Amino acid sequence: MPKTEARGARKTVPSTPQRELQELAAARIVIEEVSPEINGGRFPAKATPGQPLIVQADIFCDGHGVIDAAILSRRAGKSAWTESPMRYLDNDRWRGEIALDHQAPHEFTIIAWRDLFASWRAEVVKKSDAGQSLGSELAEAGRLIEQAIDGDRVGKAVDRRGLDILLKAFRAAEDDAARLGLMLSDEVAALFRRAGPRTDLTRYDRVLPIRVDRPEAAFSAWYELMPRSQSGDASRHGTFDDVIARLPYIRDLGFDVLYMPPIHPVGRVNRKGRNNSLTAGPDDPGSPYAIGSEEGGHDAIHPELGDFDDFARLVAAAAEHGLEVALDFAIQCAPDHPWVREHPEWFDWRPDGTIKYAENPPKKYEDIVNVHFYRDALPSLWYALRDVLVFWAGRGVRIFRVDNPHTKPLPFWEWMIADVQSRYPDTIFLAEAFTKPKMMKRLAKIGFTQSYSYFTWRNTKQELTEYLTELTRSECRHYMRPNFFVNTPDINPFYLQTGGRAGFQVRLVLAATLAGNYGIYNGFELCEAAAIPGREEYLNSEKYEIRAWDWDRPGHIRDDVARVNRLRRQHPALRDFTNVEFYNAWNDNILYYGRRTPDRESFILVAVNLDPHAVQAADFEVPLWEFGLPDHASIRAEDLVTAQPFTWRGKIQHMHLDPAVRPYEIWRLIGEADAS
Amino acid sequence: MPKTEARGARKTVPSTPQRELQELAAARIVIEEVSPEINGGRFPAKATPGQPLIVQADIFCDGHGVIDAAILSRRAGKSAWTESPMRYLDNDRWRGEIALDHQAPHEFTIIAWRDLFASWRAEVVKKSDAGQSLGSELAEAGRLIEQAIDGDRVGKAVDRRGLDILLKAFRAAEDDAARLGLMLSDEVAALFRRAGPRTDLTRYDRVLPIRVDRPEAAFSAWYELMPRSQSGDASRHGTFDDVIARLPYIRDLGFDVLYMPPIHPVGRVNRKGRNNSLTAGPDDPGSPYAIGSEEGGHDAIHPELGDFDDFARLVAAAAEHGLEVALDFAIQCAPDHPWVREHPEWFDWRPDGTIKYAENPPKKYEDIVNVHFYRDALPSLWYALRDVLVFWAGRGVRIFRVDNPHTKPLPFWEWMIADVQSRYPDTIFLAEAFTKPKMMKRLAKIGFTQSYSYFTWRNTKQELTEYLTELTRSECRHYMRPNFFVNTPDINPFYLQTGGRAGFQVRLVLAATLAGNYGIYNGFELCEAAAIPGREEYLNSEKYEIRAWDWDRPGHIRDDVARVNRLRRQHPALRDFTNVEFYNAWNDNILYYGRRTPDRESFILVAVNLDPHAVQAADFEVPLWEFGLPDHASIRAEDLVTAQPFTWRGKIQHMHLDPAVRPYEIWRLIGEADAS
Repeated sequence: MPKTEARGARKTVPSTPQRELQELAAARIVIEEVSPEINGGRFPAKATPGQPLIVQADIFCDGHGVIDAAILSRRAGKSAWTESPMRYLDNDRWRGEIALDHQAPHEFTIIAWRDLFASWRAEVVKKSDAGQSLGSELAEAGRLIEQAIDGDRVGKAVDRRGLDILLKAFRAAEDDAARLGLMLSDEVAALFRRAGPRTDLTRYDRVLPIRVDRPEAAFSAWYELMPRSQSGDASRHGTFDDVIARLPYIRDLGFDVLYMPPIHPVGRVNRKGRNNSLTAGPDDPGSPYAIGSEEGGHDAIHPELGDFDDFARLVAAAAEHGLEVALDFAIQCAPDHPWVREHPEWFDWRPDGTIKYAENPPKKYEDIVNVHFYRDALPSLWYALRDVLVFWAGRGVRIFRVDNPHTKPLPFWEWMIADVQSRYPDTIFLAEAFTKPKMMKRLAKIGFTQSYSYFTWRNTKQELTEYLTELTRSECRHYMRPNFFVNTPDINPFYLQTGGRAGFQVRLVLAATLAGNYGIYNGFELCEAAAIPGREEYLNSEKYEIRAWDWDRPGHIRDDVARVNRLRRQHPALRDFTNVEFYNAWNDNILYYGRRTPDRESFILVAVNLDPHAVQAADFEVPLWEFGLPDHASIRAEDLVTAQPFTWRGKIQHMHLDPAVRPYEIWRLIGEADAS
Repeated sequence: MPKTEARGARKTVPSTPQRELQELAAARIVIEEVSPEINGGRFPAKATPGQPLIVQADIFCDGHGVIDAAILSRRAGKSAWTESPMRYLDNDRWRGEIALDHQAPHEFTIIAWRDLFASWRAEVVKKSDAGQSLGSELAEAGRLIEQAIDGDRVGKAVDRRGLDILLKAFRAAEDDAARLGLMLSDEVAALFRRAGPRTDLTRYDRVLPIRVDRPEAAFSAWYELMPRSQSGDASRHGTFDDVIARLPYIRDLGFDVLYMPPIHPVGRVNRKGRNNSLTAGPDDPGSPYAIGSEEGGHDAIHPELGDFDDFARLVAAAAEHGLEVALDFAIQCAPDHPWVREHPEWFDWRPDGTIKYAENPPKKYEDIVNVHFYRDALPSLWYALRDVLVFWAGRGVRIFRVDNPHTKPLPFWEWMIADVQSRYPDTIFLAEAFTKPKMMKRLAKIGFTQSYSYFTWRNTKQELTEYLTELTRSECRHYMRPNFFVNTPDINPFYLQTGGRAGFQVRLVLAATLAGNYGIYNGFELCEAAAIPGREEYLNSEKYEIRAWDWDRPGHIRDDVARVNRLRRQHPALRDFTNVEFYNAWNDNILYYGRRTPDRESFILVAVNLDPHAVQAADFEVPLWEFGLPDHASIRAEDLVTAQPFTWRGKIQHMHLDPAVRPYEIWRLIGEADAS
């Protein structure tokens, strides 16, 4: 039972000094739950030029007065802030936008203040509506004008003159009604908004970073190929010149990025044979991921591909075809990589003096040895790896697909990416981390520009809806840019193995219209699906042998690929992937969604039959409400596959998707149709 | 199209110095999403002694190695940390508990490390299972023992001896099988857990505060009364002695806190009459919230109630009855409060020299004037208000119900609560802020110990389920302790106005069994519901007149009140309100939920018929699964209203709640019944 005596007696505590109290009191307005703010500002939100960054925060103050708020933003390192207004949404939530035009690090914070004029105005309107006397309020109005004139926000001469004129007019007005009319005018409201005092101005206590990348960071279509398989003859090792010959084909498909797995000398020790067998035949080329031999390591080119001049020609020719070359950054080494000899301290050695090859028990990777990053490898290995990327960046490569980053220390990546980007700000890093979700997100936070995703294994309507909702609605939308690969040399998805041609069309359209970045690995457009039975691996994988492809193989879907890539470029709605909105189509096999720009000028609808084996049909909702139209309205639209305009009359329509014909529809909504 | 030349050329950037790189590299393990962490550690999580604080975090590292983690906690200002283990939950989430025994500020952080021995062990087990050779791994084991002996974690002599013995035994073992058996033993695992090296030890970069209040902060039952209405005679102003006479009654109802609205002199200027009329009759006592007259202000007692000796006797007598006195802290003043004369600079004056009374247009509160907190009132008013609370704390009052805190500056409260609690650490503040949700939460963050809630207006099954889910599952559970008042002098809820006696029973049981803190305002136990028509206000409110009550009035629910308060004290399951779990009862008018201690020793079920006008029945689920029992199992239980033991056979049971009899059931689950 409570006993006063037993509880803590009074302690002698000195009073807070007046100065300290005034500092505490200055932060009168609450600014919290700011978005985007990643780990308390430890990591930047990501943006691209031309795409405004939306900022939100909870902002509120004691009492009933009117408050206002703004975003302050600037390029990092500059002193002058740019102010962008915020607007009240609901439930104490505010929203504003920052325009970002330069590909450079930026930062922002938020300010809020009490607006005494707006409070005065709101109170006067209420009292006036209630028929209450306003004499005292009008006397206060005079004080408000005087305070504005004396305030520190009258920057422009025109505003000072405006306030002086207002004060004169106010004093000269013949009665209260005239004074009231004057003070409630829109011009005076605008004048006070520009030049009125900001009472209890409060600033958010953090400055938050923004990384602004070039547009290709968020929007690109990748084509992956093994250069050694591009000769058209499986018995002849392909060269960079063979790749150059393929560029018109890749350009015509509409891709932006040409990505090649490692182009370095391939190790000979423990080289793997065809289909990952333990012993290689004399002509087997080995896995390009077993990097390094006596011909060189990560800064060398596999001699059979060509030399540095050939590589330079490929980079230049690709650019002429609208393509940018992306290289692979895979840190592991073949046992005969020069580093093993030159830097034994970077590797793990067994007590018997032999080198430890890679394993993930019970799996063994005998053709690969891994570096470690600590002990004697810190910092020399870190510098060496950074130098590898600087080396290739110096040769025109600004996109790197990074192999398995989640098995290397996170501080290494955070440091290395920042270091390379401080030298080459336009460098893009794609994280190939197929691992647990929080690790994938952390890699994106610490600097990876793009991320491989779980898309490859999300096939059903529910799986796709849930995954896209997470990617586009949860906090990770601010820092993680997925790159939806439909297949890779390592992943021959079961869906494609069994879905036939329509299955390839389905996955193509989903990847290309649900993500900003997507990619295919060559053979996809030919509907190549031959697999090692029961596994998601390609049969006769190019990882272990040279292949020759017939690019005109019957049944290919090159037309579909070229079409979706063309539509992606033509329609701004398809750029910012976070705008996806799932709409109702009453069939669990049909995924139906919209993408639109904020102004609705570009509004795309996509419907995909996820069942590649059977016709699926459904009633569905045309989102008339997004145009403010009633359910019975008519709306003009265009079929983007056939380029035919048409009109939908009423919200509920019907679709019929036959995989034998085409398992998808892509439409554009234009706007209300004339009643006719 | 990308042009290499056009993109940023290489900048000359110096390499990161080795020392800096090593510092970056040290934080190898990710520790993020720590809970509880309020606004990045700006505000403390709240706890009470004896109730362990649950800490969670996302913790992970690159690669496949085994990691481990622990919480470090201590009393603020002490140097030595106490370590508490964390355990892996799922999806990289870890969990641990801190035992908090002292009512004092605490703090905590998290450490994590790579456990090379555990990694070695896991790999060896996998390889051994796969039948692979282990010679090399066993050679490594010797190194691991040597490293442990050389490490810095061998604190105890017994562990040092243990490692030495292990090394000898390991070297002396006759073959690999013996060495393997030794290294895989549980004793060796425990030895390494205690004394093995912690590789890449990483510490979370924040130290997070915890406020530990006394138990009454989280668990208390309040009884509110107007002391002037306790004489039993509406024509005689009640005194503190009259309140003393009521103490046995309040004790018998089982309450912990006796809360009285302001006891200070009541203003005479613009005093309100009965039912909030603008003119008071000569005998009208006025609103106790119009504080201050020539008899004194916030540090004075209304003369008709008694003097300071009488008050001291009340505080002491209350304590003897197991009750603690709570006072009201309402900052507004009557126009004749001494402060108006002594400190005109604390008030707002109109241009015509008259004082501004309180208004919220078009409403006016002519009997009240508000202080402002800035300009000339800072800091003198702040000190004066703090001194008022220190004054009453010095007279044995350690619980304050604060009137409308959301209309006063938040920095004031944050400073003042911290200041008072630094002098009287056991002081409890209840925020009476019926306002927008984010403001209510912020008040709880900045220091208010308890919060009035929206409970008073949550009546349906859906409303109650959603609201309790928010309170007990979202982040606010760490800092906001709701106090569920069923009624107040200001709120006569429509549900009670129309629900009859059963309605009062319903709201009583909900408040008492859904929240740690709850309260009633006198008259509730008598089912008093007379209202101003169409409003949630009491007719003939005690705020404006003296009332006399017949405490034995027919139809009262004093038995129910005493019962729920007794059950609250008897059953530990009812202490931590965040343990509420809603179970299935297939009737939208029946709310059915469980409360239990983590060990299930105390397990309470409550079912309430929310419809006070009709019998409601439902099948419902007995949560056998919480005891690990199958659906057909039998479980022993007790009816806590009738004190009758019984057995439920099978998961699905049926209930029948008749408001004319009793609209609720309270049961206790005991455990599996013998098959019989």
